[in-house]
Amino acid sequence: MAPRYAPSLRSRLAPLLLFLQIGFIVIYAFYTEIDSNVKADGTTFSSFYSEFQDVNVMVILGFGFLCTFLVRYGFSGSGFNLLVAVIATQWALILNGTESWYYRGKIRIHLRSIVVAEMCAASALISIGTMVGKTNPVQLILIALLEVSGFVLNEWLLQTLLKVRPLSSIMLLHIFGAFSGLMLTWILYRERSMQRFEKEKYDRKTALFSMLGTVFLWMFWPSFNSVLLDNRIPGRRLGAVCSTYLALAVSAVTAAAVSVLSNPKGKLNLIQMQSCILAGGVAVGVSMAGIHQPWEAMTIGFAAAVVSTIGFRYLKIHMLLAFQCHDTCAVLSTHGLPGLLGWVAQLVLQIKDCDDHTTAIRFAVFHISTLLITISVSLSTGIITGFLLKWNFWRPPQDKKCFDDQAFWEFPHLAVRK
Amino acid sequence: MAPRYAPSLRSRLAPLLLFLQIGFIVIYAFYTEIDSNVKADGTTFSSFYSEFQDVNVMVILGFGFLCTFLVRYGFSGSGFNLLVAVIATQWALILNGTESWYYRGKIRIHLRSIVVAEMCAASALISIGTMVGKTNPVQLILIALLEVSGFVLNEWLLQTLLKVRPLSSIMLLHIFGAFSGLMLTWILYRERSMQRFEKEKYDRKTALFSMLGTVFLWMFWPSFNSVLLDNRIPGRRLGAVCSTYLALAVSAVTAAAVSVLSNPKGKLNLIQMQSCILAGGVAVGVSMAGIHQPWEAMTIGFAAAVVSTIGFRYLKIHMLLAFQCHDTCAVLSTHGLPGLLGWVAQLVLQIKDCDDHTTAIRFAVFHISTLLITISVSLSTGIITGFLLKWNFWRPPQDKKCFDDQAFWEFPHLAVRK
Amino acid sequence: MAPRYAPSLRSRLAPLLLFLQIGFIVIYAFYTEIDSNVKADGTTFSSFYSEFQDVNVMVILGFGFLCTFLVRYGFSGSGFNLLVAVIATQWALILNGTESWYYRGKIRIHLRSIVVAEMCAASALISIGTMVGKTNPVQLILIALLEVSGFVLNEWLLQTLLKVRPLSSIMLLHIFGAFSGLMLTWILYRERSMQRFEKEKYDRKTALFSMLGTVFLWMFWPSFNSVLLDNRIPGRRLGAVCSTYLALAVSAVTAAAVSVLSNPKGKLNLIQMQSCILAGGVAVGVSMAGIHQPWEAMTIGFAAAVVSTIGFRYLKIHMLLAFQCHDTCAVLSTHGLPGLLGWVAQLVLQIKDCDDHTTAIRFAVFHISTLLITISVSLSTGIITGFLLKWNFWRPPQDKKCFDDQAFWEFPHLAVRK
Repeated sequence: MAPRYAPSLRSRLAPLLLFLQIGFIVIYAFYTEIDSNVKADGTTFSSFYSEFQDVNVMVILGFGFLCTFLVRYGFSGSGFNLLVAVIATQWALILNGTESWYYRGKIRIHLRSIVVAEMCAASALISIGTMVGKTNPVQLILIALLEVSGFVLNEWLLQTLLKVRPLSSIMLLHIFGAFSGLMLTWILYRERSMQRFEKEKYDRKTALFSMLGTVFLWMFWPSFNSVLLDNRIPGRRLGAVCSTYLALAVSAVTAAAVSVLSNPKGKLNLIQMQSCILAGGVAVGVSMAGIHQPWEAMTIGFAAAVVSTIGFRYLKIHMLLAFQCHDTCAVLSTHGLPGLLGWVAQLVLQIKDCDDHTTAIRFAVFHISTLLITISVSLSTGIITGFLLKWNFWRPPQDKKCFDDQAFWEFPHLAVRK
Repeated sequence: MAPRYAPSLRSRLAPLLLFLQIGFIVIYAFYTEIDSNVKADGTTFSSFYSEFQDVNVMVILGFGFLCTFLVRYGFSGSGFNLLVAVIATQWALILNGTESWYYRGKIRIHLRSIVVAEMCAASALISIGTMVGKTNPVQLILIALLEVSGFVLNEWLLQTLLKVRPLSSIMLLHIFGAFSGLMLTWILYRERSMQRFEKEKYDRKTALFSMLGTVFLWMFWPSFNSVLLDNRIPGRRLGAVCSTYLALAVSAVTAAAVSVLSNPKGKLNLIQMQSCILAGGVAVGVSMAGIHQPWEAMTIGFAAAVVSTIGFRYLKIHMLLAFQCHDTCAVLSTHGLPGLLGWVAQLVLQIKDCDDHTTAIRFAVFHISTLLITISVSLSTGIITGFLLKWNFWRPPQDKKCFDDQAFWEFPHLAVRK
Repeated sequence: MAPRYAPSLRSRLAPLLLFLQIGFIVIYAFYTEIDSNVKADGTTFSSFYSEFQDVNVMVILGFGFLCTFLVRYGFSGSGFNLLVAVIATQWALILNGTESWYYRGKIRIHLRSIVVAEMCAASALISIGTMVGKTNPVQLILIALLEVSGFVLNEWLLQTLLKVRPLSSIMLLHIFGAFSGLMLTWILYRERSMQRFEKEKYDRKTALFSMLGTVFLWMFWPSFNSVLLDNRIPGRRLGAVCSTYLALAVSAVTAAAVSVLSNPKGKLNLIQMQSCILAGGVAVGVSMAGIHQPWEAMTIGFAAAVVSTIGFRYLKIHMLLAFQCHDTCAVLSTHGLPGLLGWVAQLVLQIKDCDDHTTAIRFAVFHISTLLITISVSLSTGIITGFLLKWNFWRPPQDKKCFDDQAFWEFPHLAVRK
């Protein structure tokens, strides 16, 4: 029996959305302008636009359809993703622009700043991957706002304390999103999660929809890793694109092999493969600055896929049983572990390139501090968000309505009288 | 029981298609050439091509999969859309080139002219949105030919009488398509429409297919609004892209909020959201010339989404009961109302920018005349097309075969013996 | 009852994949470098990248989802395609680079070489189109490796013996893939194929998934035909894009018309249309060098669609009954016949352009030799691959498990306990 009324939507979601949106419009009215001087960093509109669209496709379509594999949760998977992504992007545009606002009185909007904002939104979407199916959209929007704030704070801390370049700190979004998502799901753990939710499964068609999203992520990941690189250094973006492409190719092959080996029946698992073919892209993104040769990227892709596939098979269930983290989309093995591996790879590669011990040690200390700060901020953001969301005021869905579109969407066969 | 034979196809569709296609080839053989001088307006091949492809994706994939939400009409939704789009584009290329043919003896084909032709095709596809499921493909092709002719005539009238720039008149395609579609559906009203057709509903999977089409339209709408802008004025295309992006983002949030508020059960409706998240793109496209600040675009996106969402909920059913317009894809609220709102917004913004009263009044008269001419031509095209299609010679599908692929397509379980 | 264990996967697939992937990494480690000098042929990174991505989308998404129409074979269709494509691309990168390795000691990787490698992979994917559903993934990977080797050998032969330009020989991939696929399916013929496999059919939703793949192929085909053309000759790529676009448009219309005429019930068939709307792109790709006017491309598109549609209807079943070739994806009529037609069209067009008889005859001899060599190498590759695959060591799936994901994939309702 479909619920007759979704208590969280009319009295919570609609006012929140209208308040946020009108607030954003007011802020944009006073503090933003479109930046017509687009050649600041050597990129012209045309040379940037197609990669901008690739990232846009990844964030809206890729992440959105990735979450449609749940058999009764396709509407929410794709619809809420769109909603969360656009709110997080608008919010990130404001937060990222505060420095420019402070010095020049205006936040300048151009394609690059929108891409950066979409990447901040991606870090929130990764966190949300752990919570898919167990929250209402009001909670998702709160997660998005807080995660983006935490991520921007982390960037600011890294830049202020350690002089980390913006590009390197943005690529930590995978680690940031995964760890803060784990905290979230740990705090918001439901007893029911111990037995599997009956609706948490996929069917032939929904898995194909999520394959579609995955394939778009896989294809456009080279754009994701290269879009923000400086075009003025010849070959830099090309290098990033080729490295990412090769790492993704290796990941796809390795994920299939390890998936077969780790499966008790010796079969492939489509959802596992979907998570793990992306591992190479994540790891190479994090370690980009240290990669100079194709084989380095490929080796990282290989290792990342192995770690990710084994993580999906064994870690996901142990996280649930031992730590009470119910990680719906296996974010830990898709983004967390490959991200950490990429971090280690960069450390190794950079130290190898160093001429003397002193530089190497200084780099190591710098690199470890970067990670520690990121993980601390990430865990704190997760904890704060988690406790805020525990508040019953937000009316989280009941256990039996988890993983079900009917809780939020007018349902097809009832929609006949629209 | 599947119909054994589709009378309209073999004796009507096949000869019409072959006649049209051979005719087109003959016309192209005598009067067209490929324009190798591509730098005419400051765009090179590379800088134009990726936006060309975005528009192509919108017209073929976006509009095509938008119509797959009907539970038994997916083959027709996507297949007929492709057919109609390519015929309309070829026809529009010829019509748009007549002036060039008159002066130079040849119609020049380049990427820009194909994009313009695809936009003319889009105006026909919008009209067809009102008739989805209630016509046969022969009728769809006739609609496409006549709509495109009417739209090109309208452009020519606006240009000749009022010196409207081609770009501004093209963006009226939403208004043109919506009103002439409404006329069509009014004239071709079927008694049965009063009770809902039993097959006019969607299911979990078909709604996801149409979500896919919508998401592609949503993502690439910035290209649609910016592709024809002059690249030589720096920042012009960038401004259009950023404005459209922000307006679409605001539309998505607002559509969700208003959808919840206007729903009797307080739930979201995916098909309603799909129609209404695009409203911002439509409105900003129409009012592009007047927008200078991000917040203007965002406010227009907000208003467009409110109007569109409320229109979908209340106007669609009233159009049916009061005016006997059965508008399958809610074209009035998706394209018509946001288009009109964009027109009003441009009027207000331009008048605000005027220095003295005389200029303002002259602009207002000019702007109102533009709209009146467009709506007159649009309604006339709709009426003429409608009466032509009423002719039983075209063998429209019977009521009980409306919204059903079986009337036109070899059906899966029967296809085993292919 | 789902099979409990897939014998071919754990003991065959996983070791093969790991061996290949580690081998590739080792080869790449010693013999490749990323080419930072990207302006060699007048293309910059930005001007090339969006077409590179279009080709990537075609190979991964287009070909992948094209094979999802089989009702129980969607996971394999899209998943194995990804796997095969990335292995074939990595292998082709190595093979294509041997000459550069011989002279300079290193294989240079840049976007252009990846595109060429993906096109070699496409020739393997076309061959595999004949075998979809009747092989296990180990066999698919062997086919990919051997097909790519054969295709690169063919290119090398054409270049060495006849001085055929690389671009022209690459475009023969459709003919190469189709004929070697036919040989494969002839040698690996299963008795069961005479009666139709019960699972070889499609349903409403799977046909839409494959429509999606087809539409991406259709939309991005202009990129496929133009991406490798030299940018320095102004208008060359533009000409290729416009010609391909028009030919595809004509194909779509013609395929619909002929599909209706050739169908016993006078209805359309979606799978037939999907195969045949691409014919124009194939034929124009092969005959590109000879096309100067739009109408030439359109006429070729028309003829290709007629041949392809009639081939699909009558030839497919006769190939099965008379020659025991069970061609699952109708590769002969989708790629083979239009490819041959394009070859003929180029012959006619080039001879028409010749001034004197001697040149014409010399060109004809040259052109016919090209085709004969290609078909010989293609058939030999098919025969060698076929006999290798007949070896029972690879454990081909039993007849009753053909066209069924359950043989290889952990199945949804069993996956609950993952």
